Amino acid sequence: MKKINVLLLTSSLAFSLASVADDKSVIPPAPNGIEFPADYPNWRVISISHRTDNNSMRTILGNDIAIEAARAGNTNPWPDGAVLGKVVWKQTAKKHWPSAIAPDKFVHAEFMFRDSKKWAGNGTGWGWARWVGTQQKPYGKDAGFSQECISCHTPVKGNDWVFTTPAMFPTVFK
Amino acid sequence: MKKINVLLLTSSLAFSLASVADDKSVIPPAPNGIEFPADYPNWRVISISHRTDNNSMRTILGNDIAIEAARAGNTNPWPDGAVLGKVVWKQTAKKHWPSAIAPDKFVHAEFMFRDSKKWAGNGTGWGWARWVGTQQKPYGKDAGFSQECISCHTPVKGNDWVFTTPAMFPTVFK
Repeated sequence: MKKINVLLLTSSLAFSLASVADDKSVIPPAPNGIEFPADYPNWRVISISHRTDNNSMRTILGNDIAIEAARAGNTNPWPDGAVLGKVVWKQTAKKHWPSAIAPDKFVHAEFMFRDSKKWAGNGTGWGWARWVGTQQKPYGKDAGFSQECISCHTPVKGNDWVFTTPAMFPTVFK
Repeated sequence: MKKINVLLLTSSLAFSLASVADDKSVIPPAPNGIEFPADYPNWRVISISHRTDNNSMRTILGNDIAIEAARAGNTNPWPDGAVLGKVVWKQTAKKHWPSAIAPDKFVHAEFMFRDSKKWAGNGTGWGWARWVGTQQKPYGKDAGFSQECISCHTPVKGNDWVFTTPAMFPTVFK
C-alpha cells in the first residue's frame, strides 16, 4: 500500500514537471531570440489602460525588478533586468453594468526586456517581443519586426521608450 | 569589525520589522472589524475595467486563494479564504496617446472577503470593506455601511455577488 502511494506520488510529480517543461517548449522564442516569459500571468501590476481607438483593454505587468523600480520611481531609465509586459484583450461591455468596459477575448501579450548592453544596437536598450493569440504565436517574420515596435514607441523616446506611467498604490508608494 | 557588522545587521532588521508593523497599525480596520490587507499591491491580476459612467479605471486583484480559484474556474461560489480587491483611480488621457485612457489619482481600494460562515448573517457570505484616498481611511460610519455594497452588487447575486469575470491568460488557463 505504501509502495503504491509512493509510485502514485512519483508519477504525479513527474507529470507536473513534464507539464511545466511542455508549457515552455511548445511556445517558440521571438524571431530575435527572446524566450517566452511563461510566468508573466504571475507578475504584479504596474498600470492598466483602455485604448478607445482600437477597442482594447490592457494591463501592464512587471517582473520583480520592474516592480521594485516602479515603486522607487527609478524608471528613466529602467534598470537592467526589468521586463514590462502588456497583456491585451478586446473590450466588452459588462452585462450587469453596461457602462463598465472590461476584457473579452485575449489578443496578445507583448514585452520590453531591458538589457542596455545586449540591445544597445537597436538604439533603445530594450529587447522587444510579442506572442499573439491563445496559441501565443511569436510575432514577426524575422528579427527586423522590432523596428515596428520602436517606431510606434518613438513618441515616448524621452520616457525611456515606455508609454506607461506606474499607477499609484498608496500603501506601497510613500 | 565583525561585531559592528552584526550590530548593523541587527538594527537594520529591527527597523524593517518596525516599519512593517507601523504600516499595519496606522491604517485602522473597517467599521465591521475587517483588517486592512496591507499587502494587496502585491496580489496578482484577475481583471480590469473602465467605468465610463464615473470616469474611473479599476484593476481587480486576488489573493492566492482567489487567483487559484479564478484559474480553475471555481468562482460560483468562490472558496472560503478568497479575497477580491478592486483598486480604483480617476481616469486620464495619456499625453502621448490621447485615445488611451489610464489611471490618474488614486480613489480607493475596496475588498470582498469570502468566509461563508463568518459572513452568513448579511446574506452574501462575503465581508465587505473599503479604504479611501491616499490615507486609506476606512469607509463607513458603522458596520451598517456594507448594506450599501450589497445593494450595489445585487444585480450579480446569481454570480456569487461578483461583477468580475476573470480575464483570460492563455498560458495559465488551458
